[in-house]
Amino acid sequence: MTEAVQGSRRGRPRDPDVEDRVFDAAIELYGRTGWAGFNFEGVARVSGIGKAALYRRWSHRAQLLNDALKARWIRVDDIDTGDIRGDLLAVARLLLDVLTGIRGEVYLRILTDTGLHPEVHEATADYRAGVVAPSRAMVHRAAARGELPAGTDPGLVIDLVVGAVQNHVLTTPPELRDRMQERMHAYAEQVVDTVLRGVRG
Amino acid sequence: MTEAVQGSRRGRPRDPDVEDRVFDAAIELYGRTGWAGFNFEGVARVSGIGKAALYRRWSHRAQLLNDALKARWIRVDDIDTGDIRGDLLAVARLLLDVLTGIRGEVYLRILTDTGLHPEVHEATADYRAGVVAPSRAMVHRAAARGELPAGTDPGLVIDLVVGAVQNHVLTTPPELRDRMQERMHAYAEQVVDTVLRGVRG
Repeated sequence: MTEAVQGSRRGRPRDPDVEDRVFDAAIELYGRTGWAGFNFEGVARVSGIGKAALYRRWSHRAQLLNDALKARWIRVDDIDTGDIRGDLLAVARLLLDVLTGIRGEVYLRILTDTGLHPEVHEATADYRAGVVAPSRAMVHRAAARGELPAGTDPGLVIDLVVGAVQNHVLTTPPELRDRMQERMHAYAEQVVDTVLRGVRG
Repeated sequence: MTEAVQGSRRGRPRDPDVEDRVFDAAIELYGRTGWAGFNFEGVARVSGIGKAALYRRWSHRAQLLNDALKARWIRVDDIDTGDIRGDLLAVARLLLDVLTGIRGEVYLRILTDTGLHPEVHEATADYRAGVVAPSRAMVHRAAARGELPAGTDPGLVIDLVVGAVQNHVLTTPPELRDRMQERMHAYAEQVVDTVLRGVRG
């Protein structure tokens, strides 16, 4: 089966089905091992796609990680609810779902690896820009609509919302996790409403 | 030198000088390797204190990590400036200093390891409680002084301040790091003042 798939896919690395399997495998492996264990051998093993096919498409494992994150990880560019409260709530809930989901460890790995390994930080800049730019755009749109004071610092708003959610999940002890999950969408509202009151002054 | 020190210290594991060296070594090693490479062999090598002496004092490497964090890492129990703005600013600035300091990687390691390894989460509960309880107490004191509405959620206030600072540092790209460091104490004021306006309603 693996051999047949490898045979049929070779030379067609942009086949969407192959990319799907590579990206799924990359995210799974990366979550399990982080940067330390993330390599073409592992992705080939988990995906069943030959190493040669991976090398034809990606010259460095960091590029493969960046593309997998862009395809399979946090995306906020489709969030545009029409008002800033809706947009920030969507971001907060998405993050809560990701952080408490079965691939939540990927989030932790990215945080650490981009901080510790300059090559990961550099290679994943493209993925990060795809999250940062649309997040900032939400705040700019809100200011343009008159929902937030002109000149509101988008970085501050995003740091408060994203940071609070992140800290909330990461510091909740295992024994309180069920309770946190029941209440987490209400918590998202508390965070967003507090931040909006704060920046509106 | 190492031999002499080992010889003179054996059987006196509570000697403050020995503890100092063990804790310094533990923090240094942990920052470098995280949980994956944190062990008695490594701490003995870095500190010059014999492994036997370490084993007499700590039965598991997670206990040693917990004690080293308590002795050498973030402590907020001595922060009591008399008002909530001063207290939260002190917390924010302390975190900014730690995150941008030469042992900043320790912070990232703790975040990841407590999320990924239940034994680390459990063993460091004591260290974490020593940070969480005094942080919450700041908010309770402020409510008692009438500076914050009665019933203000301490967890929310701390998540917003700590999370924003954390996200700010972790998402600043290397090329903007110098600028961030110049402005980071002003950023702490922006965060704290926004959060206080938000919770005051």
